[in-house]
Amino acid sequence: MDERIRKQLDFSLEIDKEKNVFRQTSLSGKGRKENDAEHAWHMAIMAYLFREYANEEVDIAKTMLMCLIHDIVEIDAGDTYAYDTEGLKTQKAREDAAKERIFSLLPDDQKQELTALFDEFEAGRSAESRFAHAMDNMQPLILNDSNDGHDWKEHDASAKAVYGRHAMTKLGSEKLYDIAEQIIKKHIERGNLTP
Amino acid sequence: MDERIRKQLDFSLEIDKEKNVFRQTSLSGKGRKENDAEHAWHMAIMAYLFREYANEEVDIAKTMLMCLIHDIVEIDAGDTYAYDTEGLKTQKAREDAAKERIFSLLPDDQKQELTALFDEFEAGRSAESRFAHAMDNMQPLILNDSNDGHDWKEHDASAKAVYGRHAMTKLGSEKLYDIAEQIIKKHIERGNLTP
Repeated sequence: MDERIRKQLDFSLEIDKEKNVFRQTSLSGKGRKENDAEHAWHMAIMAYLFREYANEEVDIAKTMLMCLIHDIVEIDAGDTYAYDTEGLKTQKAREDAAKERIFSLLPDDQKQELTALFDEFEAGRSAESRFAHAMDNMQPLILNDSNDGHDWKEHDASAKAVYGRHAMTKLGSEKLYDIAEQIIKKHIERGNLTP
Repeated sequence: MDERIRKQLDFSLEIDKEKNVFRQTSLSGKGRKENDAEHAWHMAIMAYLFREYANEEVDIAKTMLMCLIHDIVEIDAGDTYAYDTEGLKTQKAREDAAKERIFSLLPDDQKQELTALFDEFEAGRSAESRFAHAMDNMQPLILNDSNDGHDWKEHDASAKAVYGRHAMTKLGSEKLYDIAEQIIKKHIERGNLTP
């Protein structure tokens, strides 16, 4: 087996571990918490289905791949809940170390490519990354909505924090932001989010 | 909320259920069984990384999307293990009914598009579908290899059945089939597959 394919296989096996990184979002039907791989799968399909609502034209292959890999660093760094202010302080350093270790398993050209794609997502300065961020927010929102705000109630989440997060949704898609806003308002009215 | 986006959101919520369809493949580290959403996520990333080994040039966006949706019908039809001869007899009818119900949640144009993509995967007559089938086989193979053939031993799988399945791998990628063959031979030697 040549070195190149061996490295690609090693990376492929390593990312299997993302299936063990659990998030704070519950599956529909008030199920168990979902993991990063499931979340990424769901986001990538949604990116394809909802691409007509992106504010700017997006390269859909690039957007889907970005969705698929955007949480790989959490294999080492763990999931940091969007409204966990303490965890958010150390998130960048933990994720940078993970990014270097995990993508270094790949052949150098693919390491560079996937690292650049990961960084592009994080920076949020391209059309694809803005739309991928919108998916990163909309995917847990529809699950949480279907569970009557269960995850927000569990964490005593505030409407302010949720609105803050969805500022990114608006940059990716005005249309989807309108939907997000309708959902958030409904859950404030129901008392599932503290105003 | 307009009818179109409501349908797209309904479909997006429905496919969440794919995370509850468990397969016969164990996660690396002899972990729990994996589910269809995790398997599809893993396959789509592998399709991107290994695309240089496809026998024919593939449209990678189409291939990744095909990988992501190829098991959606199992939400209703359940997973049929590749070496379960009884289940395989009724698989087509169960999956056809599921396909109609689930894709009908989408707006009609997207229903037609995703149904066609699903059918294209099943038929295996395009470059993308052949390569996606290679991923469908290689992804559980690398997990099973990492677990010393655990899933094959559990099901008393025969080398003949495994080779039969990997005939599809060869149609998608000669190079990856060579890797599969090396792995299968190793597990026959170790007694993990009945010769």
